[in-house]
Amino acid sequence: MPTTVKAYAATAPDRPLEPTTIERRDVGPRDVRIEIKFAGICHSDIHTARGEWGGVPYPLVVGHEIAGVVAEVGAEVTRFAVGDRVGVGCMVNSCGECEQCAKGLQQYCLKGNTQTYAGTDRDGTVTQGGYSQQVVVTEDFVLRIPDGLDLDVAAPLLCAGITTYSPLRHWGAGPGTKVAVVGMGGLGHMAVKIAHALGAEVTVLSQSLKKQEDGLRLGADHYFATSDPDTFTELAGRFDLIVNTVSAELDLNAYLSLLAVDGTMVNVGAPPQPLPIQVFSLIPARRSFAGSSIGSIAETQEMLDFCAEHGLGAEIEVIAADQVNEAWERVLASDVRYRFVIDTATLA
Amino acid sequence: MPTTVKAYAATAPDRPLEPTTIERRDVGPRDVRIEIKFAGICHSDIHTARGEWGGVPYPLVVGHEIAGVVAEVGAEVTRFAVGDRVGVGCMVNSCGECEQCAKGLQQYCLKGNTQTYAGTDRDGTVTQGGYSQQVVVTEDFVLRIPDGLDLDVAAPLLCAGITTYSPLRHWGAGPGTKVAVVGMGGLGHMAVKIAHALGAEVTVLSQSLKKQEDGLRLGADHYFATSDPDTFTELAGRFDLIVNTVSAELDLNAYLSLLAVDGTMVNVGAPPQPLPIQVFSLIPARRSFAGSSIGSIAETQEMLDFCAEHGLGAEIEVIAADQVNEAWERVLASDVRYRFVIDTATLA
Repeated sequence: MPTTVKAYAATAPDRPLEPTTIERRDVGPRDVRIEIKFAGICHSDIHTARGEWGGVPYPLVVGHEIAGVVAEVGAEVTRFAVGDRVGVGCMVNSCGECEQCAKGLQQYCLKGNTQTYAGTDRDGTVTQGGYSQQVVVTEDFVLRIPDGLDLDVAAPLLCAGITTYSPLRHWGAGPGTKVAVVGMGGLGHMAVKIAHALGAEVTVLSQSLKKQEDGLRLGADHYFATSDPDTFTELAGRFDLIVNTVSAELDLNAYLSLLAVDGTMVNVGAPPQPLPIQVFSLIPARRSFAGSSIGSIAETQEMLDFCAEHGLGAEIEVIAADQVNEAWERVLASDVRYRFVIDTATLA
Repeated sequence: MPTTVKAYAATAPDRPLEPTTIERRDVGPRDVRIEIKFAGICHSDIHTARGEWGGVPYPLVVGHEIAGVVAEVGAEVTRFAVGDRVGVGCMVNSCGECEQCAKGLQQYCLKGNTQTYAGTDRDGTVTQGGYSQQVVVTEDFVLRIPDGLDLDVAAPLLCAGITTYSPLRHWGAGPGTKVAVVGMGGLGHMAVKIAHALGAEVTVLSQSLKKQEDGLRLGADHYFATSDPDTFTELAGRFDLIVNTVSAELDLNAYLSLLAVDGTMVNVGAPPQPLPIQVFSLIPARRSFAGSSIGSIAETQEMLDFCAEHGLGAEIEVIAADQVNEAWERVLASDVRYRFVIDTATLA
């Protein structure tokens, strides 16, 4: 018999989230029931709930930065036991059979992985996310949160952490490389921490110098304001890798001009409108413009272990569930340093 | 005392090329004087001569696909002797000191390499290209044409060959990879030959099926018309690498959708106007959009040796110098299979 749990749900594109109850399925043989302790607030939650990325199956509970404790395991579960500290990120399943799943790249599943919320689960129901008391997930998509990481600062790693860790690793950020991080928000501040811990020389490119002190404290070596045109002159041809965490429209060609020969600019967020790209920004230095989506399950575990080893949690502001609508408005106003995390005990 | 040689020069953006004479410098200690035998006609010649890529120092002799025979060497030249079969491509010098030159990537010289024509040579004079009887070049930028390659079919390799060989190698075209070549012109037909010889599965994406028979004969495994919308449905997610040889504006996002996970589309030509790129075309499959410029001197030699080994010359139509204006019009009308080569003996 399904379990009824408390949650906060979106019911329409233009209405505040409301307290509600949802049902979680019985734990199947390979399922893990997680008592959620903390759920991070990601900008994607807002885009999705408000219908900005397509149709929404209301009522919808969002949240894909989930940290909690195992409450129950199925008979065939081997990797988790009751009481284990665990996390769930942006996906809860994939086909398991395609070329990409076979390579362990579930995030690029050719049939489309099952998103943690607003996805269609194997049983045909709509997946519901982390702004709730519990979630039931197949063990293959459950991550172990190392003891060294508190659950509240670990929650945002499940999206903001892996979304930046994966491209930093894929494009070789490390000693001897110069990495720029565009944007000092939820993703950007984690990109700074992780790139620094990987040994790269890190430069933040932010609209203003408002968060410069934070940036340098979190590990940046340099901090520049992109509102100053001199920034683009001074840094021309500088970077091996630019990780762009900003979804707003920007002058792509200006940023591409900051890449060194063989440099790559990778977007982890995307504006809805296309950006004009001047091919002559790429050719004379064999530059690349790329995109990257979260990371695989194995890489997410690797990221969590790396963050624990280096003492990297997110910078967070913990809120109660009934503050979520106010928090969303502050996210939209970039008024958070650097991630809101819902204490889900306050749902009770 | 400089040597006066016959040539064909552009004198204004809107006038036909005219027979003229130019001066070639005395052979310095490290210089090689080359008696030019054949000069390929590249689309860049036309763009440049007509001022479409910026101001032009008229009168200008273009041509950067040069094949000939060594006529004289400087006292310190060690690698070439009179009578050697040699070639010169798109560059005749570079700073030799920057990070990229130190890596042997002269094409990406941070101070800008010296282009074979319309560039500023070390002595301050304007460089003049291959539509002429002779050229004098420092030995470091002279290539050896293997005996297995006739000089006429070798000439176009110095630009069309290396411009496609370099990205094919850089992005790993070979057995087990699926490569698409966009455009069946001077560059495209060499890309097909080279990708096939490298062992890749090769697909041509051309506006129509007019050149299908040629494409399959030159080594393509498949040939599709991009004017047929079904092409983009059928080939979705197919290619590891797309080499786009077309400088005309195209629907970038439609082509990016043909890339597999981790695939790259690389442009070797560029339209003057920016192209709209939808970042969501990249993110869900970690795709890249890149640019590539010719190749290094070492890689150009490697390409010539590879082409000789595999019997790959360009498909050419040899013309006399006084046919060059007519040939340019036919290039602009895509009416050549697949490269015009000037027999420079006809300049005499």
